[in-house]
Amino acid sequence: MSNSIDFYFDFYSPYGYLASLRIDEIAARHGRRVNWKPFMLGATFSITGHQPLTQTPMMGEYTLLDLERSARLQSANIRMPQDFPKAALSCCRAFYLLVDDQPEQAVALAKAIYAAIFGEGRDGTDINLIAKLAANLEIDADALLEGLQTQSIKDRLKAETQAAIDRGVFGSPFIFVDDEPFWGNDRLEQVDRWLDSGGW
Amino acid sequence: MSNSIDFYFDFYSPYGYLASLRIDEIAARHGRRVNWKPFMLGATFSITGHQPLTQTPMMGEYTLLDLERSARLQSANIRMPQDFPKAALSCCRAFYLLVDDQPEQAVALAKAIYAAIFGEGRDGTDINLIAKLAANLEIDADALLEGLQTQSIKDRLKAETQAAIDRGVFGSPFIFVDDEPFWGNDRLEQVDRWLDSGGW
Repeated sequence: MSNSIDFYFDFYSPYGYLASLRIDEIAARHGRRVNWKPFMLGATFSITGHQPLTQTPMMGEYTLLDLERSARLQSANIRMPQDFPKAALSCCRAFYLLVDDQPEQAVALAKAIYAAIFGEGRDGTDINLIAKLAANLEIDADALLEGLQTQSIKDRLKAETQAAIDRGVFGSPFIFVDDEPFWGNDRLEQVDRWLDSGGW
Repeated sequence: MSNSIDFYFDFYSPYGYLASLRIDEIAARHGRRVNWKPFMLGATFSITGHQPLTQTPMMGEYTLLDLERSARLQSANIRMPQDFPKAALSCCRAFYLLVDDQPEQAVALAKAIYAAIFGEGRDGTDINLIAKLAANLEIDADALLEGLQTQSIKDRLKAETQAAIDRGVFGSPFIFVDDEPFWGNDRLEQVDRWLDSGGW
């Protein structure tokens, strides 16, 4: 079995959302699995000096146009949530509460959260929404809500985010094929090709 | 005859260089011509708060890897000049000195300058280099050197740069197909497709 590929993303990253819709299929085509690795992109902004493109002067309007155009090209819907961006702490924590023991449900919940935020424009910081999405997937929502408050899950997310930064992750989505880094939804065609050919 | 497409670029932009190697061919395939439009990207940094990616913490090392990988994918050579980035005032001015009366030579000189900077790693701010490249193209190098010092060409470049900014150009390369904007060498496949289908 070949190694997994690592898929780093922020739950409030619209390009991360677009990549999330394709990454499993691309990996599967080459006999690979995907490690979904949510992290807090905001932690990198103080290092890079960047901010979300939609909030950056001159770039905001173009970014919205590019997002919609890129979504149409991959036959996806995208709808920006009313309050954007937000810090998706609870989304990440919910994922890491599940991933060790119920990895498939963790990924299913991540996809449901992304669909709620960018498919329907809903508020991803609403823990009742997260609980409802979890319940729909037959995840124990009460246990999840309780777990979100624990220090151990807060520490886990901090450690996961720091590990991402230590590995050089500064954007979302950010993908490693073995040790080869790819930044951006617009690098998925290169990821596909790299998986096919082992590099060029 | 269909409308031209507008190709904005900075002479010290490595992704602009990679795009410059492909843009004419892509346009020609669809019966279009390219308006080459060099401008001073640095003028946008005070607006966006960005700086060259190679100078941005965390992003620098990845950007060099991505540039070389992207270059290999399009079968191009790229070599970063030793001092990078620089302000390519003279390159732009030389282009605009020629473009009205000798448009084909202006573009040929732009290509020769890009090849010197990113193909050979040479110093694009060296006006003697620009003069030599011009002479190789049977452009009057003495007249060019003289013209570079005039106020009118300095004003022209300022006006061209401001016009680019007024149109929303914040990066290099930046392409308009009719009024549809595309930012980045990694959008050329979309440009190609847009030209083919008239949008999607």
